[in-house]
Amino acid sequence: MKPIQVGLLGFGTVGSGVAKVLARNAEEIGRRAGRAIEVKRVAVRNIVKARAVAPAAVVEGLAFGNDFHAVVDDPEISIICELIGGTTLAKELVLRAIANGKHVVTANKALLALHGNEIFAAAQARGVTVAFEAAVAGGIPIIKALREGLTANRIEWIAGIINGTSNFILTEMRDKGAAFADVLAEAQQLGYAEADPTFDIEGHDAAHKLTILSALAFGIPMQFDKAYLEGISRLTQEDIAYAEQLGYRIKLLGITRRKANGVELRVHPTLIPAKRIIANVDGVMNAVVVQGDAVGQTLYCGRGAGSEPTASAVVADLVDVTRLLTADPEHRVPHLAFQPDRLVDLPILPIDAVETSYYLRLKAHDKAGVMADVTRILADADISIDAMMQKEPAEGVKVVDIIILTHIALERRVDEAIARIEGLATIAGSVTKLRLENLDK
Amino acid sequence: MKPIQVGLLGFGTVGSGVAKVLARNAEEIGRRAGRAIEVKRVAVRNIVKARAVAPAAVVEGLAFGNDFHAVVDDPEISIICELIGGTTLAKELVLRAIANGKHVVTANKALLALHGNEIFAAAQARGVTVAFEAAVAGGIPIIKALREGLTANRIEWIAGIINGTSNFILTEMRDKGAAFADVLAEAQQLGYAEADPTFDIEGHDAAHKLTILSALAFGIPMQFDKAYLEGISRLTQEDIAYAEQLGYRIKLLGITRRKANGVELRVHPTLIPAKRIIANVDGVMNAVVVQGDAVGQTLYCGRGAGSEPTASAVVADLVDVTRLLTADPEHRVPHLAFQPDRLVDLPILPIDAVETSYYLRLKAHDKAGVMADVTRILADADISIDAMMQKEPAEGVKVVDIIILTHIALERRVDEAIARIEGLATIAGSVTKLRLENLDK
Repeated sequence: MKPIQVGLLGFGTVGSGVAKVLARNAEEIGRRAGRAIEVKRVAVRNIVKARAVAPAAVVEGLAFGNDFHAVVDDPEISIICELIGGTTLAKELVLRAIANGKHVVTANKALLALHGNEIFAAAQARGVTVAFEAAVAGGIPIIKALREGLTANRIEWIAGIINGTSNFILTEMRDKGAAFADVLAEAQQLGYAEADPTFDIEGHDAAHKLTILSALAFGIPMQFDKAYLEGISRLTQEDIAYAEQLGYRIKLLGITRRKANGVELRVHPTLIPAKRIIANVDGVMNAVVVQGDAVGQTLYCGRGAGSEPTASAVVADLVDVTRLLTADPEHRVPHLAFQPDRLVDLPILPIDAVETSYYLRLKAHDKAGVMADVTRILADADISIDAMMQKEPAEGVKVVDIIILTHIALERRVDEAIARIEGLATIAGSVTKLRLENLDK
Repeated sequence: MKPIQVGLLGFGTVGSGVAKVLARNAEEIGRRAGRAIEVKRVAVRNIVKARAVAPAAVVEGLAFGNDFHAVVDDPEISIICELIGGTTLAKELVLRAIANGKHVVTANKALLALHGNEIFAAAQARGVTVAFEAAVAGGIPIIKALREGLTANRIEWIAGIINGTSNFILTEMRDKGAAFADVLAEAQQLGYAEADPTFDIEGHDAAHKLTILSALAFGIPMQFDKAYLEGISRLTQEDIAYAEQLGYRIKLLGITRRKANGVELRVHPTLIPAKRIIANVDGVMNAVVVQGDAVGQTLYCGRGAGSEPTASAVVADLVDVTRLLTADPEHRVPHLAFQPDRLVDLPILPIDAVETSYYLRLKAHDKAGVMADVTRILADADISIDAMMQKEPAEGVKVVDIIILTHIALERRVDEAIARIEGLATIAGSVTKLRLENLDK
């Protein structure tokens, strides 16, 4: 089947990420979508600058041009990916793509919060889809969760950390006891905050996203102009410290809640109990909590910004539309995520071929030499030790607990080493083995 | 449009939950699905027992019967909801429903882990869908996230707390320092563990779910027989305590990871760094972490079992199929989750009509009577105090910080009270007001 042709509008952080992910994961994405997805044309303001954003291998196959309208009018293109931002040219191009009968994928929260009602009505009338998973919380599939995953529920409220810049600043203020202005300067240096940070730190960006979530949760039109905004720039170190002493953390939350007489729609610094999971979502991470009457609370957490996390959501939308244009409706989404004729036969590894870290607990007779024996056995088996703890035995007890954490090792070697350790005369009984995962990659 | 007719097989915890949620949220669900969803028939083994499970208002409109096959053969029924569990009769009925051209929604992880390959092939050949969001992690839409939300990614690994019973037991062992056997007995009393708990505590249930997640992540057939299982029954209090001292928590994790030579598929107690969010998912909650190459880590957390959380996922699948049978493919999922002609005009409330709790910081001249004045003003405004903290001033400083946390109050009243407090001669400067959310309902 002929590949789906995509037109990219914009090739900055997100646009180049989309091209990278589509190139790197082409095979995997094709197995899922049932069809290849190809970027036919890219429209940018500055071609030289755009070409410098991504590696040569990604850029060389792409047809760059300056004419945004020509891409939107190209009859061979089925999906327009709007990634230029802003609400003027972006709006014009999105409406023109819709009028041309093309599906649209956009990451533009401002555009949707301000003009979504008009755009969706046009798409509805023209029989096309406007997909926007990337518009809220980057790579977290929260739009899909709300539109499809939680449809059984009467949604009661949503609360979210949906601006990574603010969350980074608040986390640093708390961790380092630093003042707002100092942390902002640091965030700007790290590229987490713009030169003009107003949009992020005064809650505008979060309010755009919250407006979209609120509409999806309650079935109401977008009403960004009614949102209440309060940023983090006035927060002081002393309030953060006092909140901490009282058992709370301060986060910039977007909150939308259904009440008998209407809907709350507000973004402001908020004290939350420190023991809540969302209170522990730090740095540039985003998280959204949804309260539904049947499911209770569900929480979604991940990177809310950045090149590839945002591209992850854009490409998921591209796959969604591709599946729609490719398969029978009842087989749009394959049962096992990949097309049934494209499953692979990767073997399941036996447990002794697993590589991970280990926790070992030994009971040793408190005799000189036992540690030397044990560490020699581990060294012989190429198992390196990350940490070791010895618990002094209680008065009169002859057996001491030794706990060893290993670095990553092959389970078969660990088992062999354990057998040798258990054979030592200085070791009592059997060794307790538990697996340990750092989950950091 | 005529309502979609559903046949329910089974009316236990989950089946009755589905009936309750469909009844309670009929209006909201219809606005989302574009069509009403109606339970036409319910097949159960014991009608008297089944009728006693749900409130009279839910049960009275339902047609109960004993003949499972008759429901599956009913030509007016479009979707069969298999909620009887087990792998013998359930398998026969699901395959028969597929042969009859009906879509199937099931919560049966054992059935899919053991016979999914055969069932999905049959569905594919017959042109119907078998939906199974409820089979893994209850109300958390993790199947949808993997099949649709994360399609851009090469999935590297998944790690999940996907058995609530085990997580409850481990949480209690840690919090109370109690032995496994004692906590198991408590869990059985609370209804969190079965009389025969083997299935949950020895990892079978988690391995069924992990087998499904692994197939979805890597595009491989279901291979439950190759999964490695190790339960929590041998875990001792001392290992939990030692792990804690070393900065780790022990969780029963299901882990599946892609390696160069195959796929790891294993369920076992696992040490995880205590600062990881998933290490802090306690009690009966479930959580799944997915590592994708583009998005990085995303985490999904919520209730993994129970009547309505599981029903939430079953009904979401019913809505998915209903949308498929109702709308044009490109408008299957409405842009704003609800059908465009079924949006409502709930007003957005102004900020002074919001009700929440508040953090107030006052700077008071350290004079007798200031606390009495402030508390009287709050009492007059019907604002009750949850906590109060007074910071003794440093040597030579005349102004003392007073922090007040209020119970839930109307913002307008809080603002009025603040104006009165700021008018007191004993108060210096303006009052700092922050909002506080407990997020507990």
